[in-house]
Amino acid sequence: MAAGQRGKIRNNISDSLLLCKILADIFRINTLYMIMAAGSGHIGSSFSAMDIITWLWIQEMILPNEKDKNPSDIYFSSKGHDAPGLYSLLIGLEKLDFELIHKLRRLNGLPGHPDVGTPYMEMNAGPLGMGISKARGMAIANRLNGKQGRFYVLTGDGELQEGQFWESLQPTANGRFSEITVIVDHNKIQSDIYVKDTSDLGDLEQKFRSFGWEVARCDGHNFEELKKVLAHFKTVKDRPQILIADTVKGKGVSLMEKIAEDGFYKFHSGAPSMENYIAGLNELTDRVNKLLLEANQEPLKLESVEMPSRVAPQNSQKLVAAYGDELVKIARERKDVVAMDADLVLDTGLISFKNEFPNRYFECGIAEQDMISMAGGMALKGILPVVHSFACFLTTRPNEQIYNNYSERTKIIYAGSLAGLLPAPPGHSHQSVRDISAIGGMPDMLMIQPSNEKETRMALRWAIEKNQKSSYIRLVSIPCELNYKLPENYFLEIGKGVFLSEGKDAAIMAYGPIMLSEVMKAKEILLKKGISLAIINLPWLNRIDEKWLIESLKNYEILFTLDDHYVAMGQGALIAATLAKNQNHPKVISFGVEELPACGQNNEVLKYHHLDAESLAERIEESL
Amino acid sequence: MAAGQRGKIRNNISDSLLLCKILADIFRINTLYMIMAAGSGHIGSSFSAMDIITWLWIQEMILPNEKDKNPSDIYFSSKGHDAPGLYSLLIGLEKLDFELIHKLRRLNGLPGHPDVGTPYMEMNAGPLGMGISKARGMAIANRLNGKQGRFYVLTGDGELQEGQFWESLQPTANGRFSEITVIVDHNKIQSDIYVKDTSDLGDLEQKFRSFGWEVARCDGHNFEELKKVLAHFKTVKDRPQILIADTVKGKGVSLMEKIAEDGFYKFHSGAPSMENYIAGLNELTDRVNKLLLEANQEPLKLESVEMPSRVAPQNSQKLVAAYGDELVKIARERKDVVAMDADLVLDTGLISFKNEFPNRYFECGIAEQDMISMAGGMALKGILPVVHSFACFLTTRPNEQIYNNYSERTKIIYAGSLAGLLPAPPGHSHQSVRDISAIGGMPDMLMIQPSNEKETRMALRWAIEKNQKSSYIRLVSIPCELNYKLPENYFLEIGKGVFLSEGKDAAIMAYGPIMLSEVMKAKEILLKKGISLAIINLPWLNRIDEKWLIESLKNYEILFTLDDHYVAMGQGALIAATLAKNQNHPKVISFGVEELPACGQNNEVLKYHHLDAESLAERIEESL
Repeated sequence: MAAGQRGKIRNNISDSLLLCKILADIFRINTLYMIMAAGSGHIGSSFSAMDIITWLWIQEMILPNEKDKNPSDIYFSSKGHDAPGLYSLLIGLEKLDFELIHKLRRLNGLPGHPDVGTPYMEMNAGPLGMGISKARGMAIANRLNGKQGRFYVLTGDGELQEGQFWESLQPTANGRFSEITVIVDHNKIQSDIYVKDTSDLGDLEQKFRSFGWEVARCDGHNFEELKKVLAHFKTVKDRPQILIADTVKGKGVSLMEKIAEDGFYKFHSGAPSMENYIAGLNELTDRVNKLLLEANQEPLKLESVEMPSRVAPQNSQKLVAAYGDELVKIARERKDVVAMDADLVLDTGLISFKNEFPNRYFECGIAEQDMISMAGGMALKGILPVVHSFACFLTTRPNEQIYNNYSERTKIIYAGSLAGLLPAPPGHSHQSVRDISAIGGMPDMLMIQPSNEKETRMALRWAIEKNQKSSYIRLVSIPCELNYKLPENYFLEIGKGVFLSEGKDAAIMAYGPIMLSEVMKAKEILLKKGISLAIINLPWLNRIDEKWLIESLKNYEILFTLDDHYVAMGQGALIAATLAKNQNHPKVISFGVEELPACGQNNEVLKYHHLDAESLAERIEESL
Repeated sequence: MAAGQRGKIRNNISDSLLLCKILADIFRINTLYMIMAAGSGHIGSSFSAMDIITWLWIQEMILPNEKDKNPSDIYFSSKGHDAPGLYSLLIGLEKLDFELIHKLRRLNGLPGHPDVGTPYMEMNAGPLGMGISKARGMAIANRLNGKQGRFYVLTGDGELQEGQFWESLQPTANGRFSEITVIVDHNKIQSDIYVKDTSDLGDLEQKFRSFGWEVARCDGHNFEELKKVLAHFKTVKDRPQILIADTVKGKGVSLMEKIAEDGFYKFHSGAPSMENYIAGLNELTDRVNKLLLEANQEPLKLESVEMPSRVAPQNSQKLVAAYGDELVKIARERKDVVAMDADLVLDTGLISFKNEFPNRYFECGIAEQDMISMAGGMALKGILPVVHSFACFLTTRPNEQIYNNYSERTKIIYAGSLAGLLPAPPGHSHQSVRDISAIGGMPDMLMIQPSNEKETRMALRWAIEKNQKSSYIRLVSIPCELNYKLPENYFLEIGKGVFLSEGKDAAIMAYGPIMLSEVMKAKEILLKKGISLAIINLPWLNRIDEKWLIESLKNYEILFTLDDHYVAMGQGALIAATLAKNQNHPKVISFGVEELPACGQNNEVLKYHHLDAESLAERIEESL
């Protein structure tokens, strides 16, 4: 890991091109370390954008030394997941505390996606397509406040599939926002496959021109070309400018620059293997040292840091995989079932489906609104679409489109994975803790969250075979080692839950593998204190069988509810409201997420929100 | 009103151009009648599209006689608010029951915006920009089901500001959906002002070509040109096609073809004055009769129908106007306040603001996502944006963008008008009864709905001056004659409501002028039966002061809640959940909207949902 030498290198090398070449690779080394230490993070995108941001920050931008310097330029990435690269650069430029290099995706560290709580992070990114709109808002603020400065906005290429990107182009040209420069990090791979195989972008240059922008194209790894284009852009006074910077995803480490033989790119979001990490480190270090030698500088001194050991859980349950497997089985039985995805084919468990039913699989790209309305069109004509994305995106970006489908009274299955507080490393844009409320105000949309693989298969079958209307299936994505089992003869009955464990002092209702596991552990802690807690799995998020509820709770004076969601408008609120129809019921105490989710490792974030077993046990004990 | 002669005219006139000319104007006559009888509806857009749809339906489309005819063509309007024109055409072609001509925007009649429950309505429209996505979904279903046929999708021009429109273009070209033909009704006026003055569209032809579409442009009122373009489009086999049809908003009635001297177009969505109605009718009838004479046909026989008299309410409270007025006052005091709007400047009460603070007023067009993220950018740089649209759009189309702003912890005021079940004539796309849930899952976003003009001013002041975080102000748009007053010394206290009327047998909590008025009337009905109902106005939609709640209700065995929203995740659920934290509380019975809102006149829709005074009184009596 490179440290300390940055200022020296910057002072000693006067050739700006050579300097940037060296620094960009040093930033790559640190990025690689940060992601390796974090256990996850976006290498490919950080590396493809690295030369661009290095040039911008070191050669182009008027940086604000003080907060209110005028003019001062602003840079941010609209795609956001290239944050590790930017953090590494800011650490290298001594604009972020060096110790943060060890704190990527850690509590009180550097969030997985940019958050304005971190210095120099100008907007919260993670959801895509918002960058130009945000920049225009800031530019207007500048105009109103008499401030000057340019805005450099980086976007991805897959990101250009989002409607908001195009929505924002014309008004920015209409307003002659010549202070806005957009750079497309055109690395041609989105998530795990080629952009052109996902949803081809067509002729970008022609498109951007047709929206009234000044357009240029160059090699995004060639500093001389970048310099020339950006110099030209500064002379454009009547319109915003956009540069298509042709880049290579994973640029800088040969083995990360390629799509693997199975057709998938392997370095989008996870940490590399130790073998690949070392190979990458060596390649980068060798190149930097060669250049340093040319420049008569000392070679890099890398610090050695012990990597946290990560033991993959044994016997973990993988709900998304079980879901994908069951969907394939159902599709073999029913020809009307099709699957749709928004650039997350690996994450949503659809590879087998795609391979077995290529004509019934629709990759829609990062175009959730288009996907949802397409599903609506199919459903109107007799097809049963099963629609996939991360819960955070699926329920919010196309929120009105889902309601439009709903109002057509067709049947569609919405499957949202990555639901709930965990995984916490990506940060709040990906921690889906308000999806129940976002689409829960549609009374006929049934929402269910399974607690293990078996219940996942049941939930999907139920949604497709039993439910006449639309369903939302909410899935935890991280593999979980479970400390409970559903009864052998368990089957889904609408609105009814199941006791996972008996207990006499109080009852708790929860759903999903993460919260139920924590509660089971909390039970053990409480048992040692002589408190016996009954645990009920209630997979129905917006249906409660009132009779069953009353009957199940008749022996309890107190009921705890536990949401893997904001307490506001989660399942707990519905349970409480159902009980309140009656005058005699246990007192209800609701646990769940109460503030913006923290970013960090899973355990530390559960603890931060007082939702880990120990905190839950304490809170329960205090309440009794 | 023209009736009965349609089949005869169609049989007797063989010149297709002349026939369409005559029929289009006959359809206009009936459209005018329908909107006049309904009291509202979109004339301008129905008229601009009339020649296009007349030509399509009579000359171009292979109409399905039976449901499964193959091939059969499908037409729908993505903008949707031109529905009266399409209904009129379908009635004229005897595809809809003639009696429906009297039932526009009535219960069990023809909804204000298309609903698939009406024959030949192929998708639910009202929200904009979804049409191409829907068509592509249907086209895929056709391909999967071995069906053939073309899709004709009409869009508006203002509609093209929506991101989803652009999001859907490239994938439709990528999939070579040559069976999809889009026609842009390019009438150059959106809502009440010119498109170019709202958010100019730039060079549309170049844009569409850059997305890989076959592009044509012609006069949308010239049948020969339409014929030629559509014939050409049928020869295009490798790509979808789009026609920019230059049209005139309000085409066919001279006085409806113009923007008024004050700069606003007056025939977008309301019914005309009787004077304008008669003038329009005469102009259309004269022209038709002249053409009929040329074709040796009898002149039109118009039936005469008594128009429902509409008495404007006296002394009604206009919350949106009061809101707009207070916003101007605040803006005079605070320079950091700006107002943003999405093509609803008249409806959101912003005319005075726009006139007085042109540099702090931002008309964003029908681009809600762009608007919300812009507001986010401004807020990050010290501006206080107050953002406006109809509640149904504001809280759903940019749902993820609102949460992204929220996650930045800036302060923004969101003002959603047209909130709640009424007005009911536009139909469910505009009846905002799930906005509380759509954004209610953000714990720090405070939501408030005022019950009269005075409380509206207080709410806005509170949001701007008192609340440190973001607020959502939910406004009823229709003028209301109120049968209650707030106490003289009333002021807003977070989470606390106010008794509008004392009573001993039960209490009811509600908010907003419509529901509170109905409850006040219900109280009178109940009083005659010896039942005394206490009425509490609780303007806070997601904050309840628990102490105040318990104290206020200590004398009651039963509490009713009444939501101008779905019961699911409305205020009532929160009240109930708050009470359920305790074991002794009144039994809670929640009223509100329980199914997709019906379209119709306000009184009939309130009654349909059992939310009018009589139904409420009955339901309360039954529960006691």
